[in-house]
Amino acid sequence: MTSTMSVSKPNANGNGHANKITLKDINSPKDLRACSVEELTSIAEEVRQLLITTCAANGGHIGANLGVVELTMAIHYVFNTPKDKVIFDTSHQAYTHKIITGRREQFPTLCKYPGGLSRFIVRGENEYDLFSAGHASTGLSAAMGFAEAAKHKEADYQTVCVVGDGALTGGMAYEALNNMGYNQTDINIILNDNKMGISHNVGAMFEYLKRLSEVSTDDRARRAIGTIFEKLGFKYYGPVKGHDFNELIHHLEEMKHIKGPKILHVLTDKGLGVDYMENDKATWHEHAAFDIPTGIAKAKLDPTKPVHPSIESIATSALIKLAEKDKTIVGLTAAMAAGTGMVKFGEKFPDRFYDVGIAEEHAITFSAGLAAEGMKPVANIYSPFMQRAFDQIMHDVASMHLPVRMLLPKAAITGDGWTQGGILDLSYLRIIPNVVVAAPMNENELYHMVKMAVDYDKGPIAVRFPKGTGSGMAIDAEFKTIPIGKAEVLKEGKDITLLAIGWPVQDAVKAAAELEKKGISATVINARFAKPLDEETILKHVKQTGKVITIEENTLIGGFGSAVLECLERHGIKNVDVKRLGAADGYIPFDTPANIKKSFGMAMDDIVKQAEKMTGKH
Amino acid sequence: MTSTMSVSKPNANGNGHANKITLKDINSPKDLRACSVEELTSIAEEVRQLLITTCAANGGHIGANLGVVELTMAIHYVFNTPKDKVIFDTSHQAYTHKIITGRREQFPTLCKYPGGLSRFIVRGENEYDLFSAGHASTGLSAAMGFAEAAKHKEADYQTVCVVGDGALTGGMAYEALNNMGYNQTDINIILNDNKMGISHNVGAMFEYLKRLSEVSTDDRARRAIGTIFEKLGFKYYGPVKGHDFNELIHHLEEMKHIKGPKILHVLTDKGLGVDYMENDKATWHEHAAFDIPTGIAKAKLDPTKPVHPSIESIATSALIKLAEKDKTIVGLTAAMAAGTGMVKFGEKFPDRFYDVGIAEEHAITFSAGLAAEGMKPVANIYSPFMQRAFDQIMHDVASMHLPVRMLLPKAAITGDGWTQGGILDLSYLRIIPNVVVAAPMNENELYHMVKMAVDYDKGPIAVRFPKGTGSGMAIDAEFKTIPIGKAEVLKEGKDITLLAIGWPVQDAVKAAAELEKKGISATVINARFAKPLDEETILKHVKQTGKVITIEENTLIGGFGSAVLECLERHGIKNVDVKRLGAADGYIPFDTPANIKKSFGMAMDDIVKQAEKMTGKH
Repeated sequence: MTSTMSVSKPNANGNGHANKITLKDINSPKDLRACSVEELTSIAEEVRQLLITTCAANGGHIGANLGVVELTMAIHYVFNTPKDKVIFDTSHQAYTHKIITGRREQFPTLCKYPGGLSRFIVRGENEYDLFSAGHASTGLSAAMGFAEAAKHKEADYQTVCVVGDGALTGGMAYEALNNMGYNQTDINIILNDNKMGISHNVGAMFEYLKRLSEVSTDDRARRAIGTIFEKLGFKYYGPVKGHDFNELIHHLEEMKHIKGPKILHVLTDKGLGVDYMENDKATWHEHAAFDIPTGIAKAKLDPTKPVHPSIESIATSALIKLAEKDKTIVGLTAAMAAGTGMVKFGEKFPDRFYDVGIAEEHAITFSAGLAAEGMKPVANIYSPFMQRAFDQIMHDVASMHLPVRMLLPKAAITGDGWTQGGILDLSYLRIIPNVVVAAPMNENELYHMVKMAVDYDKGPIAVRFPKGTGSGMAIDAEFKTIPIGKAEVLKEGKDITLLAIGWPVQDAVKAAAELEKKGISATVINARFAKPLDEETILKHVKQTGKVITIEENTLIGGFGSAVLECLERHGIKNVDVKRLGAADGYIPFDTPANIKKSFGMAMDDIVKQAEKMTGKH
Repeated sequence: MTSTMSVSKPNANGNGHANKITLKDINSPKDLRACSVEELTSIAEEVRQLLITTCAANGGHIGANLGVVELTMAIHYVFNTPKDKVIFDTSHQAYTHKIITGRREQFPTLCKYPGGLSRFIVRGENEYDLFSAGHASTGLSAAMGFAEAAKHKEADYQTVCVVGDGALTGGMAYEALNNMGYNQTDINIILNDNKMGISHNVGAMFEYLKRLSEVSTDDRARRAIGTIFEKLGFKYYGPVKGHDFNELIHHLEEMKHIKGPKILHVLTDKGLGVDYMENDKATWHEHAAFDIPTGIAKAKLDPTKPVHPSIESIATSALIKLAEKDKTIVGLTAAMAAGTGMVKFGEKFPDRFYDVGIAEEHAITFSAGLAAEGMKPVANIYSPFMQRAFDQIMHDVASMHLPVRMLLPKAAITGDGWTQGGILDLSYLRIIPNVVVAAPMNENELYHMVKMAVDYDKGPIAVRFPKGTGSGMAIDAEFKTIPIGKAEVLKEGKDITLLAIGWPVQDAVKAAAELEKKGISATVINARFAKPLDEETILKHVKQTGKVITIEENTLIGGFGSAVLECLERHGIKNVDVKRLGAADGYIPFDTPANIKKSFGMAMDDIVKQAEKMTGKH
């Protein structure tokens, strides 16, 4: 394979197109296929501008997407989509795909929920979107399904999977490679190697790919160096320049006609076309709305809006403070160093920080091993991703009472879809024996709960909380002790008990104030723990008022409210009116958190209404 | 490194041992270190005999353990255990370890629960047992924790991890390698390559290791062929003959003195020393008590005990019958082809069967891809292992309503420890939106539920059931239809409702008969579904009797009984006496299932007592 061949087509499509084709003419990949390479190149620039202006206005995954403009266009140019199937791992790289598959005009609504275009692939959004994703490393397995189905159905479509080098740190990706190489699945894997995960990529495979990309195909062939992929049964092509249409099209065309499992290694640049993004790729992986000339976040340009420290940064600052005095504290994350705020921990304690890649399972069992030898591991992993380690928490941590500390940011109803909001953790963690499951009501309590988690040495402990801009509330100067399993009674009342956990405690407090005005006297309890429940405090107040509303930012299936029901059953208490408020059993829609909470009937107003109804005072 | 050097020590230990050392003298690895290679060799034969006689009497993982006698002894001979840390992945290979670390006399009690020696590694069983395991592919991550802890603590112990080639099909193992290679962790990995998982090993890595084991170290060095492990930052040594003490000791000694991550590739033979085991390694991975001369299972030699088809084989036979008529049915398992009975499906439909290796995550997302293209994937994975795919079921299947059919054998209280019994699945599956969660009350209903699952095309569906010898009950000749979400009222009564799911329905039926004798009239409902609940049927009978006992072979946290509590709350029903029976929140002990159920208060007698208590008629 050489990479010098030039590809061009006559400047005409079936309709006898005569003028230069531009982005506005591209309503489907078919239109793209009528383009010359020169036109593709100029359309790519138009796409890039659309990406920048849209993300500057709405925020989004700008970095990764700027890196795959040419690659995405080349794939749709060469493969016969939608008959041929293209699966995007993680979907952080699918904006160009959306633009050129009929959603150009809708694109400026990206991330504007409700109603706007999803920033992820959502199966069925149109016929080109085949497999939803938001968690990484799933694409290869899914694509193998599409590819093997073609074999079973004797269908003649091709399957293409675009997977980032970051996603290759996930074990699932390896499981898929191992299985595809063995089955000699007929599949085209495009390894989009931008040397980054969300943050800088890590791991031995990353180092290997770096070395590999410094050797040309011809060189490797001459020296008979087999790649890892070849050893696993794949044909390997590359490295290919990811922004050169001639080279991309040439290799994709050639690949298309070869049977079996094959990988095209494509080198791309995250943030290509915008200096400040190319120079700070981790920051620009995903970014809020920004000012194009300077790259400054729009929020920072608005003097009326003070920029408060993020919630997650409060947790990290507590951890750093503790780690300064305790050398046994070790910090871990799974390719979320920036998002969890652990990047600061890593800067401060480089020898005691591990970013293990997109490898939540490993992160937890590695932590278990550290804890077994007396270290104090703190694994900081978003709630929706921690669920990948369910078995590891159960099998490798809790079974041995190993004190692995888990921080779970993003445990909240977020507006950016079901893959990002973490509303299952109270339920799935509670199932596992021996795990302490805590949730603070605000940033100050979060600060103290980090201390509590680090101090707790009898088994695993999890602290879950939302992520994002904080309230700016004052954080206590000194750590205070929060006793494990003790709830806090914030207000005593006689008509009804509002029993909340986590951030919704704030809504309960407000609701109680509203109710007071209406002559309803409510007890407010900050439960703090979903496990162990503070049964004594809860039963006392529930019995006193005879009525209880539970509130949680978690599914109503098996969550905190269910723990309360179980507690009442265990104690043989009936004749208590119970109403549980929380997330309905279903996937979080793309919408604003406020709208979603309203639709779930768990907003502050809903608490008030529910209390009025239950007390008969409305 | 050459492998010809002979290792021997003077035949004397610190106590001036003069006679030949035999197994009875080995009370700790220290005693082993006083042996000559000749003595080690004859002790190994004694160990082998002890393994055979014990497993012939009690059952156990005989195959894998016969393969690692010399390797295990060599590790303890070379490394300074217990100061040096040895982690056994999966613990299916730790019998010799137990015998030579002070548990020789206790060894004949292996698997004789309660009271007998666990067949798994249980952290703390003695000072040599550092990390519990029963699920595969966790050892490398755990060992990395031990190794990195040594660095942080500036301790000078060595860390050794013994991992099978089968475990290398699990993605987590790769995540650990990727992370260790990158961090240059100081660790000794012993790759116990017996070419098998539980069944025959599968996957591209397996094929690769096979090729690798045909090339000698010298050959490879001469031809400058880098192994996958070297590309990932490890030093690689091997292949080494796994039953040759000289070779093993020589290489382990050399390895011990090299810093950084390193792998010793050891070739072992599963079942070594017993002809019929060497010739049928899959069958002899784990085996019930057997007759030593013939290898015939003792159960089969007892004419008073009829051998009924296993429960899991009933499920597989239904699936085979369906697949004969429906070419879109595809069967999958994750290295459990024999244990799930899917081996027969694979024999019948080799082109429609995938054993993906120890890769539950991949199995489920691969199934999702197949389902997305209209195939009917049926993933047959033990309940305790399916929990590894919690995120995949949530993120890759249920979110898209993809009809992936899941069969979960071993969803029961088993006596062989918490790693094997599946008592969490009703809880963790119920959390996930859009999943149908079903459990048959017996083999005949299981048979029909397989049909139900295959027919259901609106989203994912899971059927959970125990594994093991069946009752011998008749199976209907024709499939009948079980409507999704419909419970079955088996008996109507007026005093109390017994509402059970799965096999415990049989206990409820018996309990109702007992109660009838005592003048208590019980309704018995076979709930069939934990999700969706048949709310109509349940509410009708619960309201009628005002009292309900739920029974499930599942944790009481978030399980079926909790679903019933949630249902009552949702419908605003109080004044109903509810008692939930099921597994206590904790890990299943090593004991007989009958004892365990009694200790959980969920045996048939407990149902009777509870009903008497609740009806006041006792």
